[in-house]
Amino acid sequence: VAAALVADLAAFRDRHRLDRVVVVNVSSTEPVPDPHPAHARLEALSVALCEPGTVLPPSSLYAYAALRAGCPYVDFTPSTGARLPALAELAQAQRLPYAGHDGKTGETLVKSVLAPMFAMRNLAVRSWSGINLLGGGDGASLAEPGANAAKSVSKQRVLGETLGYVPEGTTSIEYVADIGDFKTAWDLVTFSGFLGTGMRLEFTWHGCDSALAAPLVLDLARITAAAHRAGRTGPLTELAFFFKDPLGDVDHALSAQWEALRRFVTGLE
Amino acid sequence: VAAALVADLAAFRDRHRLDRVVVVNVSSTEPVPDPHPAHARLEALSVALCEPGTVLPPSSLYAYAALRAGCPYVDFTPSTGARLPALAELAQAQRLPYAGHDGKTGETLVKSVLAPMFAMRNLAVRSWSGINLLGGGDGASLAEPGANAAKSVSKQRVLGETLGYVPEGTTSIEYVADIGDFKTAWDLVTFSGFLGTGMRLEFTWHGCDSALAAPLVLDLARITAAAHRAGRTGPLTELAFFFKDPLGDVDHALSAQWEALRRFVTGLE
Amino acid sequence: VAAALVADLAAFRDRHRLDRVVVVNVSSTEPVPDPHPAHARLEALSVALCEPGTVLPPSSLYAYAALRAGCPYVDFTPSTGARLPALAELAQAQRLPYAGHDGKTGETLVKSVLAPMFAMRNLAVRSWSGINLLGGGDGASLAEPGANAAKSVSKQRVLGETLGYVPEGTTSIEYVADIGDFKTAWDLVTFSGFLGTGMRLEFTWHGCDSALAAPLVLDLARITAAAHRAGRTGPLTELAFFFKDPLGDVDHALSAQWEALRRFVTGLE
Amino acid sequence: VAAALVADLAAFRDRHRLDRVVVVNVSSTEPVPDPHPAHARLEALSVALCEPGTVLPPSSLYAYAALRAGCPYVDFTPSTGARLPALAELAQAQRLPYAGHDGKTGETLVKSVLAPMFAMRNLAVRSWSGINLLGGGDGASLAEPGANAAKSVSKQRVLGETLGYVPEGTTSIEYVADIGDFKTAWDLVTFSGFLGTGMRLEFTWHGCDSALAAPLVLDLARITAAAHRAGRTGPLTELAFFFKDPLGDVDHALSAQWEALRRFVTGLE
Repeated sequence: VAAALVADLAAFRDRHRLDRVVVVNVSSTEPVPDPHPAHARLEALSVALCEPGTVLPPSSLYAYAALRAGCPYVDFTPSTGARLPALAELAQAQRLPYAGHDGKTGETLVKSVLAPMFAMRNLAVRSWSGINLLGGGDGASLAEPGANAAKSVSKQRVLGETLGYVPEGTTSIEYVADIGDFKTAWDLVTFSGFLGTGMRLEFTWHGCDSALAAPLVLDLARITAAAHRAGRTGPLTELAFFFKDPLGDVDHALSAQWEALRRFVTGLE
Repeated sequence: VAAALVADLAAFRDRHRLDRVVVVNVSSTEPVPDPHPAHARLEALSVALCEPGTVLPPSSLYAYAALRAGCPYVDFTPSTGARLPALAELAQAQRLPYAGHDGKTGETLVKSVLAPMFAMRNLAVRSWSGINLLGGGDGASLAEPGANAAKSVSKQRVLGETLGYVPEGTTSIEYVADIGDFKTAWDLVTFSGFLGTGMRLEFTWHGCDSALAAPLVLDLARITAAAHRAGRTGPLTELAFFFKDPLGDVDHALSAQWEALRRFVTGLE
Repeated sequence: VAAALVADLAAFRDRHRLDRVVVVNVSSTEPVPDPHPAHARLEALSVALCEPGTVLPPSSLYAYAALRAGCPYVDFTPSTGARLPALAELAQAQRLPYAGHDGKTGETLVKSVLAPMFAMRNLAVRSWSGINLLGGGDGASLAEPGANAAKSVSKQRVLGETLGYVPEGTTSIEYVADIGDFKTAWDLVTFSGFLGTGMRLEFTWHGCDSALAAPLVLDLARITAAAHRAGRTGPLTELAFFFKDPLGDVDHALSAQWEALRRFVTGLE
Repeated sequence: VAAALVADLAAFRDRHRLDRVVVVNVSSTEPVPDPHPAHARLEALSVALCEPGTVLPPSSLYAYAALRAGCPYVDFTPSTGARLPALAELAQAQRLPYAGHDGKTGETLVKSVLAPMFAMRNLAVRSWSGINLLGGGDGASLAEPGANAAKSVSKQRVLGETLGYVPEGTTSIEYVADIGDFKTAWDLVTFSGFLGTGMRLEFTWHGCDSALAAPLVLDLARITAAAHRAGRTGPLTELAFFFKDPLGDVDHALSAQWEALRRFVTGLE
């Protein structure tokens, strides 16, 4: 299968006479795959892919094919994608950049500015709970428990990284067909200030995920292509601005990510 | 009157053997005063204050007395305070720092992180409307139309400065005795993204203004005292982090203000 | 002017060979008019209308013309309409029914079920505050202070009538062009229960006023025509289900109004 | 065990020289028990209780003991309680009344007035989704999956019964220690009106369950005692006003339940 995908990508590039193709994963969220020894080393993975049986989840199989075909790879979902040691090795061998994970379009975007606000003002966040109601294909996919678990982990990461501690509370996801391609997210934050005074913030975000994602996908394709042209290889940690669960040990506050992105893009020009 | 206030401040400093006294205005919001020719120059103001009649609103009279007594002055309210050319002249002559205006404790604090988020993502804010319900003495005072107008202007300033344009919508303030010293603020933001898709964000902030203000007032007193000790004079624009309507032509995004504050405080040590 | 309107209505009825025409006022809200001595008696009003000058606001002029032309009249707005002693006299003389005031389409509809809930459970409502944000022609009209005042009075009436006391708080109305023909209403209710425990309910209603009003207008036209056919005259107090500010000393709880409406309609068949 | 409980209840009644004792179950929610053949007939149940092993869940064991001791029984929880054919038989044999299930204190109370509102206006409810965040002992218990399932079924019943159809959506329950004995419930209702226009209602209920439950428990004890005194036996379906999941085939609209309660109580006097 991998060889066929590589051939498809190469044929597409040739047919349209393109300098480069950036592969962006925008398919539905996968469950976390079972571990496999071939994930650790490129050589073992290459061998295993020639044998019958499933070694890689689809997102990683496409990442493998993209990198083999010489294409930078961007993961806009919380799926595994290029996040395996064997694929990092492949990207390095091919001298290709890659980026991810999980486009930060709505509720997590809001979290990434509110959580630093609480931290800057030294207000202790006691709990942060929320629910996401969404329809459409993405909603149907996330209602599946495995995908749901992968997504929820990605969504709460910003809190621990920004606050320095993890408040109680979880984010649940529910499929509601009537909401269609929009998503309604409700969050309740309880926090305490001077002398332990308890206070609350609630918000409701009603956004169209596709309309929020599309310009980010376009920017990611352009910036990743520019990074490739400029000879950048490996994980593009400077693109954390776009992701809920960014690669590398990076700042999760949106303003810091914005500054990092500006510097990166300016350096590519 | 001014001379009596000066004497009181000096006596307080002497009685407690203090190196310095920082005067912080936390009284109720005043209406915007009528213009007066003596506001423009210190000499004219000093003469006018010796004559019968009211030249300055209370907040500015206290600012005058503080500066005459050699005390730095901080305005935690939207009142006029030290914001008159004659008082800037006096601060310079006395080699004193001053800061203001209007402590950023709740709804505007949230605005100062959400508005940059919309700007960074190039989401066009179409309208931003809100209502503040509050009881207590502050609520009773703000229900008075003059004070209300002064406050509302201060609260919307962050949007124009951060977004680069002023969306439609206003912030209204209503006195509700039952809410007491807490404040409930509700805001509705409508915005549009890719292909003009309309989306919405609502939030409800339920905070205790006194508990939110107290640590800011303590920090302002300490930092302003440190600035005085370090020989800083004139408007302390680096303290914009604390204020809805900060002095000077400064960034209104909270994260930028936080960086400016960190640099300032580090430089004082 | 009145005579021309009467002639228009009669011509319309003749041209379409109709048994009866019901006139429904769905125009924009008017300010409350100044009192005029001719409002009290039909004879004085008839004389005054023949002289130059404005005696009646437009809604009442149309009500006068409708009744003169033999048409039942329904007021779907908070304007004065048929609510003048002289016009009640005219309806009686013409043996015509009339109904009003102010279609109960959104926020007040919700109030008319929540307020009885608090009363039935003996929960003391401490405050009920709200804001309505709306665009469109209706929003622009209501942003005018006179119309705004007429509307706000109409909107709060349900609370006093249902609870037996008037909690603190007001309903404000703001024009936000971007919201268009939809209306977003936010209400905060504070209440207390056993041992004085303070609690809260918030709701946000996002409705399309036209889509909510249209079926009510159709039902009102049909039911009022049926009442006319059945020989009913004077104020139709049984139609309180449809109105924020109903005619007569009637129950304001929606369920009681629904029962009254069912009995009324069944009695007409 | 049952005999000991019977003896305790009788001793309590004698010690305080009481005419009657009403037993009210306010303990934590139980999971739905496994079926057992002895649930169907009193005789089989009485035999089974003399043998080792668990036949009844605690709520039903207490109901059995209460009825054996001649005490009316009220179930303020969604647990099984007296809802077994064998126990209905026992109540009949003892000529005792009983009531239940699951006190309607907060979110479901609001549903029981909003759902009839949509029905009366012929607005089609498309989805009704919600989340309950609560701490305290009740929250900890409901976070347990079995109890959670029992509760969620009880909470959604009002929609199907009132609307005549079941809209999509679920109610989830999450334990958040920081919220303590208060509960924050958020609901989103999507509905459509004239020409299919989509609209939305959101509400947040922030209530103290204990303060909401206490007066209902007192009223239930008094009314059930009065019913016993008046010779009423079997299920008290007229007390549906108090319950989420009432006994019998009754109206679920709060106003109809209120009328039924008034008639019932008046009839007992």
